[in-house]
Amino acid sequence: MINIRLIIEYDGTAYHGWQSQKNALAIQDVIEGAVFELTGERSRLYASGRTDAGVHALRQVANFHTSSDIPSERFACALNGVLPEDIVIRHSEEADMSFHSRHDAKGKKYRYVIFNKEHRPALMRNRAWHVPYSLDLPAMEKAVEYLQGTHDFGTFMSSGSSVENTVRTVTGTSIERRGELVLFEIAADGFLYNMVRIIAGTLVETGAGRISADDMPCIIGSSDRIRAGKTAPARGLYLVEVYY
Amino acid sequence: MINIRLIIEYDGTAYHGWQSQKNALAIQDVIEGAVFELTGERSRLYASGRTDAGVHALRQVANFHTSSDIPSERFACALNGVLPEDIVIRHSEEADMSFHSRHDAKGKKYRYVIFNKEHRPALMRNRAWHVPYSLDLPAMEKAVEYLQGTHDFGTFMSSGSSVENTVRTVTGTSIERRGELVLFEIAADGFLYNMVRIIAGTLVETGAGRISADDMPCIIGSSDRIRAGKTAPARGLYLVEVYY
Repeated sequence: MINIRLIIEYDGTAYHGWQSQKNALAIQDVIEGAVFELTGERSRLYASGRTDAGVHALRQVANFHTSSDIPSERFACALNGVLPEDIVIRHSEEADMSFHSRHDAKGKKYRYVIFNKEHRPALMRNRAWHVPYSLDLPAMEKAVEYLQGTHDFGTFMSSGSSVENTVRTVTGTSIERRGELVLFEIAADGFLYNMVRIIAGTLVETGAGRISADDMPCIIGSSDRIRAGKTAPARGLYLVEVYY
Repeated sequence: MINIRLIIEYDGTAYHGWQSQKNALAIQDVIEGAVFELTGERSRLYASGRTDAGVHALRQVANFHTSSDIPSERFACALNGVLPEDIVIRHSEEADMSFHSRHDAKGKKYRYVIFNKEHRPALMRNRAWHVPYSLDLPAMEKAVEYLQGTHDFGTFMSSGSSVENTVRTVTGTSIERRGELVLFEIAADGFLYNMVRIIAGTLVETGAGRISADDMPCIIGSSDRIRAGKTAPARGLYLVEVYY
């Protein structure tokens, strides 16, 4: 038995998120199906975390155990031969038997992409949130600064989550305009449910002048979901990197 | 009667190119259908030129005549309300009655996008040509330089074209690596059938070391299609701009 670690890119548009569930096709199902096709084994795939329906990944990490004699570094190519076009294994390698993609993750980085033009996007339609009004980037940059460090991020968590400890440490942030896109990146030791999407919604409200950047410390401190912006759409969110 | 000029972005993946044809859905058909839905008129749409199946456009230009009393600058928004998600009107305005998108075009700019990684792309699968081997960018840059200026570009034209004068003037070129992408841009006073895709194919052969950059003048001078590289796939090609 060996433990295989995969690095996976996917377009989340067609799927009901990463995690298997009843009556809906998840990315996990598709990759587990591909592993079964290659190995004949019903291996369980463990990812660094789930992503919601419509959310994309550039470098999701997942692992599975197998007794197949396919060389570990060949799994990427072999799986890509049977996977659909919108899921690709970027890399495969053997990991310690004790390695677990979720338990061992030390942090993650996400990117949120805003398409900031009056007209809706055609080519980026499933890849970004369309915000048609002008955004004040310096105000958004200022708001982003306040997220740095260790805080209770309960304000930025969707209700329904059963997580008790809502303290997280944000280790890096950036926001920049690139042509018609506004790109926001955030790295942290962990993320609450919908945290990046609610922060993105709050930043857009800040850029639109409906929230003042200087109110961010109070908004963060309030632990009151109602003070944050709305949850930004899934299609603009990308899991960029998982840190170990 | 007024003449309306549109600037159009589209994802060419789902369509059989710009131009109407029997038994296949073209982008022209879809936009003419949207104009009919708004105005009740069967207006003919004149574009700067056709694009092939799978080719994208960032700023295609087209015009049509209408007696509708919809304000010219409102057409963009009104059409976007009835167009599918993969076609968007970026801008609409009234033009001189004599304006014709194709006859009056002075030149165009195209971009060709290469996804240059070992594994195939998931998110960019319909947006780029996957070239898995490493590319020598300096060699490609050198080859691109030779395209500048006025030449007979007959080497880079697919057979079956009835064009007689194959002399064109290339006014600008660039090639650059941006992360996992290689972007090639070319502006000219006109393009032959499949010219950008055959040049892109030739540049990739150059980057792979199968064609020497210094052979480009001979390849151009030969007017022999067989000396150029293969025609690169449509999905990596974007009409970027039309000049008037």
